[in-house]
Amino acid sequence: LISENFPDSSVRRLSAYLRQLELLSAAGVTRVSSRQLAERMKVGGAQVRRDLALFGQFGMRGVGYGVEEMIANLRDILGTERRWKTAVVGAGPLGLALLRYGDFPQRGFELVAAFDVDPAKIGMNVGTVEVFPMQRLEEVIARKEVKLAILAVPAAVAQQTADRLVAGGIEGIMNFATTALQAPANVHVSQVDITAQLEQLTFQISHDRDDRAETTS
Amino acid sequence: LISENFPDSSVRRLSAYLRQLELLSAAGVTRVSSRQLAERMKVGGAQVRRDLALFGQFGMRGVGYGVEEMIANLRDILGTERRWKTAVVGAGPLGLALLRYGDFPQRGFELVAAFDVDPAKIGMNVGTVEVFPMQRLEEVIARKEVKLAILAVPAAVAQQTADRLVAGGIEGIMNFATTALQAPANVHVSQVDITAQLEQLTFQISHDRDDRAETTS
Repeated sequence: LISENFPDSSVRRLSAYLRQLELLSAAGVTRVSSRQLAERMKVGGAQVRRDLALFGQFGMRGVGYGVEEMIANLRDILGTERRWKTAVVGAGPLGLALLRYGDFPQRGFELVAAFDVDPAKIGMNVGTVEVFPMQRLEEVIARKEVKLAILAVPAAVAQQTADRLVAGGIEGIMNFATTALQAPANVHVSQVDITAQLEQLTFQISHDRDDRAETTS
Repeated sequence: LISENFPDSSVRRLSAYLRQLELLSAAGVTRVSSRQLAERMKVGGAQVRRDLALFGQFGMRGVGYGVEEMIANLRDILGTERRWKTAVVGAGPLGLALLRYGDFPQRGFELVAAFDVDPAKIGMNVGTVEVFPMQRLEEVIARKEVKLAILAVPAAVAQQTADRLVAGGIEGIMNFATTALQAPANVHVSQVDITAQLEQLTFQISHDRDDRAETTS
């Protein structure tokens, strides 16, 4: 059932449910209703029930969902009940910021290596993570059994670096370079486009203004 | 028409179409078919035609879409035909990386100010952008007519900082802090969750493995 194709938007919301449930758990809450979850997520209660039913989660009317049980199930579904060895490739300003991003370890992503071409950075430790020379990419990836790569290299070298990650046995690439990557079907690529997210905002702002202009004219 | 509610996923794809069209334009291409666009985007041709028709773009069979015209129209729809004065709030590692992110200016986002509480950073210039003390947030935002804020402060102070941005006249906030923000209805908030994007990848990888296990058993 779970291995069918789900809409990306539902999978994205699962991460958001998990986040809210982790906050509830940290606050000592043990049960939650779909309505409470919906309020925290700013979506409708029916949407919450639909999303969770899609992934085999069923709350009971008047009793709701068990917070710890649901956290375990969502982690199982998202694949983060196990730890993922992750590398940051490219230790420029963005790569360094991601290496220092405190949220990764607590959410199942263990940073085990970084890579850069700059001799001044090689051998450096960022937190507990060593920066290796880019020439050793395949070797270190294979030896440390890294399965995820966060790609933060210049766009001009993104594809060739991705090819080497694939050769090294990487299963998933989160790509911050502003270029679309080609990868074999068994390697998953997630494209991060920060500017596109700003465009979502300007789209909403612009169309709000249009609406107000129409209302007042 | 355009001011109706569109699915977020369609708006996200508009940004991606714009990206591809800009690349085609830079390569000297003047016309493109929905099929060519679909191949570059790795979606179906019918999806492309549906998305673009939703926003009033109609290609002609056998002639396709005019690249420059479509770029102008997409920018108009996304609101980026005009420049947006943007501030980065929080000049930690992530804020500094975003200040150096070369993609913003060419896509309509003009960084005009940064803010931090660290006296060592105040007065510093990152590229052409000055770091102001956080106490001057409302004043500088108002004086420079900043409309967008990129929030890269610790989660513990994200809400209070967002409240001050709203007071200063900000219309949109892209929030990198891992906390949900409350904002009035006329201020748009876009939540960036980098770890959730990694979870999308682990979801796909895990379910691929399940599929393979099922096939071979």
